[in-house]
Amino acid sequence: MFPLSPGSTIGILGGGQLGRMLALAAARLGFDVAILEPEADAPATRVSAHVVQTAYDDPEGLKALAELADVITFEFENVPAAAVAQLAVLGVPVAPGARALAVAQDRVEEKTFLNDAHAPTVRFAPANSEAEAFAAVATIGLPALMKTRREGYDGKGQIWVEQLADAGPAFVSLGRVPVVVEARADFVRELSIIAARGRTGEIEVYPLAENHHSGGILRRSLAPASVSDALAAQAEQIAHRVLTALDYVGVIGIELFELADGRLLVNEFAPRVHNTGHWTQDGCQVDQFEQHIRAVAGWPLGPTNPLARVEMLNLLGDEVETWLKLAGEPDTRLHLYGKREIKPGRKMGHVNRISPLRG
Amino acid sequence: MFPLSPGSTIGILGGGQLGRMLALAAARLGFDVAILEPEADAPATRVSAHVVQTAYDDPEGLKALAELADVITFEFENVPAAAVAQLAVLGVPVAPGARALAVAQDRVEEKTFLNDAHAPTVRFAPANSEAEAFAAVATIGLPALMKTRREGYDGKGQIWVEQLADAGPAFVSLGRVPVVVEARADFVRELSIIAARGRTGEIEVYPLAENHHSGGILRRSLAPASVSDALAAQAEQIAHRVLTALDYVGVIGIELFELADGRLLVNEFAPRVHNTGHWTQDGCQVDQFEQHIRAVAGWPLGPTNPLARVEMLNLLGDEVETWLKLAGEPDTRLHLYGKREIKPGRKMGHVNRISPLRG
Repeated sequence: MFPLSPGSTIGILGGGQLGRMLALAAARLGFDVAILEPEADAPATRVSAHVVQTAYDDPEGLKALAELADVITFEFENVPAAAVAQLAVLGVPVAPGARALAVAQDRVEEKTFLNDAHAPTVRFAPANSEAEAFAAVATIGLPALMKTRREGYDGKGQIWVEQLADAGPAFVSLGRVPVVVEARADFVRELSIIAARGRTGEIEVYPLAENHHSGGILRRSLAPASVSDALAAQAEQIAHRVLTALDYVGVIGIELFELADGRLLVNEFAPRVHNTGHWTQDGCQVDQFEQHIRAVAGWPLGPTNPLARVEMLNLLGDEVETWLKLAGEPDTRLHLYGKREIKPGRKMGHVNRISPLRG
Repeated sequence: MFPLSPGSTIGILGGGQLGRMLALAAARLGFDVAILEPEADAPATRVSAHVVQTAYDDPEGLKALAELADVITFEFENVPAAAVAQLAVLGVPVAPGARALAVAQDRVEEKTFLNDAHAPTVRFAPANSEAEAFAAVATIGLPALMKTRREGYDGKGQIWVEQLADAGPAFVSLGRVPVVVEARADFVRELSIIAARGRTGEIEVYPLAENHHSGGILRRSLAPASVSDALAAQAEQIAHRVLTALDYVGVIGIELFELADGRLLVNEFAPRVHNTGHWTQDGCQVDQFEQHIRAVAGWPLGPTNPLARVEMLNLLGDEVETWLKLAGEPDTRLHLYGKREIKPGRKMGHVNRISPLRG
């Protein structure tokens, strides 16, 4: 069945901006797209041939999607395990696969997997009670970052613990759910690497991006990041190890901490296209969205070399109201998501500011 | 009402590949798209939020489109005049406007307009009968190209007349409809210029493309074409004259003959995005499709400078079956239209082969 012929249908769980940009990339390659999404009028639904509007774990919705689609992928990592299991029973291939999802959905599993794959992380300890939270913080040292094991994104579901006595209250305020306590990474810079693995095991990596967050939300990425060859090689080795160990198919986003001594630690990975890879839309021949579609469809991967230097800026909330000014800037490419309602901090679009590659 | 805000709806008459690529470009800028198209399952309908499936001149269909859309444009020049008139009555802006359509739909009107605008063409003469056809060929000289005044594309609706005695039979074989008889252009090269004019009258032109046809169908475009500054200036002057004289809004494709003495003649123009402008998708920051959407939406026009040299090849009929080989070529970008059925000569997709700009 692979490679999928043009005219085949790509199923996507999730109808937000990542689903929309995946759908646009799929259309360029001659594919149809079917979106499963609980909300009406979501961004991706308006650029796709088929829409199934149900909950992500609705058996009828999943059955309808499986009947439409030749392969199914997703725009977010918190796809219910039951949904993935049902799709497996229905016999439609899901990429990336169940293992990548399971690992990515649990921060303890994820860090355990990463260290086993020789992709180092900060020290961490799980906790399931106030007492365990106290013990975990005592073991990891202060300050420590307490995060829910599951869910949470854009800085939600995490608390810095500055004093040992705060460990219990932090556990309570996170909702008394299983947590992971992480050591602080004394990083000098946040980087990320976007990589892809095809169905025959080939791997392509994009140049690293340097990322700037505010309040837990990505504001700005610069790519290609200014890094030494050794640092780039280290990141590429991490990407290869992670992709291979997961027998991965598709694009992955791996967030990295650069330490003062030049070592890289993995913060986390997202088993999907990633906000820090949006620069590839205007900096590479084949962007991360087309690359992901190529991978899941069993096509050869495309080139990842940079053609330009890009500064990617997220447009959060009412920042999108500057669209007319941005549209008038000659080297600024505007990408808007078609979201109906502006909310504070909501990702409404992004721009890629383009300049020539350095030397 | 202009510039149209993101979230507005662009109406497009026609659901083929040009409509599809316009719809994808509109989506990137946050617009919704409504397609009016008589055929079911047409390429553009599968990437658009709204579809009205009626004939192009169906009053109910046009009314439905006008209710959905904030501005209406088209992917083909043979939009029925009655449809444009009805849309005008309904009060929805159409771009490019009725005058550009009327001129482009009649080859005698078109050539008369072009010469009046100091955009020179070959000599030509109209004919409405066998006797007039004979007289027209006698006036223009041999060989002469007889074309129907209206309709006809990709080499259809035209006959070369090699001998005076063939004038009458040619007129008959074209269906005894009004024709234009054109002198042969002794051209050394076929070029084209893609240009855009915004709602405030600003004009942007892309570098020229060099075009190669076979059997009346475009096979290959090379851009930026290797031309002297003087030739480029001559083409840009023609584009400015045509766009200004038509009070045009949108992208136009102007086909040119380069003569041995360095003069340019206009072959014809298409009041829409144009096959010879597909190279801009992978050779420019803002391609002709986004540029057209920007123009009709009243947005500022984007930059037109080339970032790469591109060879565009149309994939006709079963040539599209080479998609897997093409997908594996590193500097080849594949654009497939999602057409269900392969027919001989049918435009199924195109590729842009990318190389660095020279010098």
